[in-house]
Amino acid sequence: MAERADTVYLNGDYLPAAEARISVLDRGFIFGDGIYEVIPVYGGRLFRLAHHLERLDHSLDGIRLANPLSHQRWQAILEELVRRNGGGDQSLYLQLTRGVADRDHRFPVGTEPTVFAMSTPLEPVDPELLAGVAAMTVEDIRWKWCNIKTIALLPNILMRQQAIDAGATEALMLREGYVTEGTASNIFIVTGATVVTPPKNNLLLPGITRDLVVELCRSNGVSCLEEPVSEEQLRRADEIWLTSSTREILPVTRLDGEVVGDGTPGPLWLKLIGLYQDYKQAFREGRIE
Amino acid sequence: MAERADTVYLNGDYLPAAEARISVLDRGFIFGDGIYEVIPVYGGRLFRLAHHLERLDHSLDGIRLANPLSHQRWQAILEELVRRNGGGDQSLYLQLTRGVADRDHRFPVGTEPTVFAMSTPLEPVDPELLAGVAAMTVEDIRWKWCNIKTIALLPNILMRQQAIDAGATEALMLREGYVTEGTASNIFIVTGATVVTPPKNNLLLPGITRDLVVELCRSNGVSCLEEPVSEEQLRRADEIWLTSSTREILPVTRLDGEVVGDGTPGPLWLKLIGLYQDYKQAFREGRIE
Repeated sequence: MAERADTVYLNGDYLPAAEARISVLDRGFIFGDGIYEVIPVYGGRLFRLAHHLERLDHSLDGIRLANPLSHQRWQAILEELVRRNGGGDQSLYLQLTRGVADRDHRFPVGTEPTVFAMSTPLEPVDPELLAGVAAMTVEDIRWKWCNIKTIALLPNILMRQQAIDAGATEALMLREGYVTEGTASNIFIVTGATVVTPPKNNLLLPGITRDLVVELCRSNGVSCLEEPVSEEQLRRADEIWLTSSTREILPVTRLDGEVVGDGTPGPLWLKLIGLYQDYKQAFREGRIE
Repeated sequence: MAERADTVYLNGDYLPAAEARISVLDRGFIFGDGIYEVIPVYGGRLFRLAHHLERLDHSLDGIRLANPLSHQRWQAILEELVRRNGGGDQSLYLQLTRGVADRDHRFPVGTEPTVFAMSTPLEPVDPELLAGVAAMTVEDIRWKWCNIKTIALLPNILMRQQAIDAGATEALMLREGYVTEGTASNIFIVTGATVVTPPKNNLLLPGITRDLVVELCRSNGVSCLEEPVSEEQLRRADEIWLTSSTREILPVTRLDGEVVGDGTPGPLWLKLIGLYQDYKQAFREGRIE
């Protein structure tokens, strides 16, 4: 059991994580009735904050919860939290729930949302993962509004654990013959010289890192399509990548026990991870916004 | 905002609800990683407790969480909670989560589950509801393991609220042309002299009240089938009922704005609600287990 020593933000207060407690009647605890974001911080600066806050608004719209804070206020709170946790590289997490109310499915009236944020040190991605990870395919058992970044993540947890138990790092979800995403990552495949990632719709989370990778491909002359990826395309891919805010771009070198490509991270992954690191470094040094 | 004055149970302690707080790192709050039960209490006695504890075990198996307490221990805790809240008729709620851990999808190791229970007075069902309620159909957007009674209820909440906004009491969910259940109830239809309810599978919750209604039909000469119910059958039904532990059997007299049957609670509903009340009374008086 972990009670972190760092400072968290809860409903207006900064306090030690071990002291941050919520009512058992919080709708986050009772119903999973809330949403979240994870924002990487490099050199004390919040990476792609505007994109994250925009996605936050979309998630809130999706569950019909008004954002209690302006983007400016969010920025101030999150930057203060980063500062109190010592700056540098961090992984910032924020969560909003529909607040504390008697247990009733119906939306409560006049209830203030619960606003919570925490931050943990963000270490460089484990070199072992960068040498290539194993993935396994599973049936996508989730609901139909996967574009909402909800805290009701039980399906993702169960599928991720299934992958871990099978010795894999991530589960890739298949819905009706097409791959949607990983349980906490988006997916890219490479076929020949072309990068393909599934288009954004209600069946997958619109990843901020996903979007950046698409951008980096296109601004660097790499052909990148946003098109459905069939199970067959996935299994025949020359490269498979997983993208997420904290693990960046991971090469998948084994899928369901079979070797992907030649079993090592591919040349396009190598190109993109380089571009990604350059971009991140430029951001860390304040050369780009 | 509601902070109840009654006594709740949390991880071994009985305490006022307003003092019952959990860590922000509880996996119930962060991930919706938990399950629950709602048990009606009549005259201080827990109704169909064995059935509820059996379903609890199935839900726990479904999310791969070991039950930290024996059924005997559960019974002792819940009975004590009922006693401390004054006995009589209550609605007992219990919840288990995978406990407090650093945020990581992976199951935590060596973490104790969070065990929570609360109870609220159980009033007789509102006579206005018994005069007939409105329901609306919605697409079933939920995940594929709806037989697990998980706290990750965001989809149910969104669909229930959609029904409420449309002036209905409950949303009836349709998946691929068949009705599964309500957002917090099972469904029965009557066609002629036959009662039909969808069979138990991974797409609906195995309701304890549902099972009792099936039992009461069969032991009282009412034909009751457990078969899929198509949207067309639903729309042509002579009667529609909703069953749940706290609202018992509700007659649906309007569906998507159309009158069901003759627009009043039907004769088979009247028969079954009588049988249900008799059964409940016999239980309350200790004449049956």
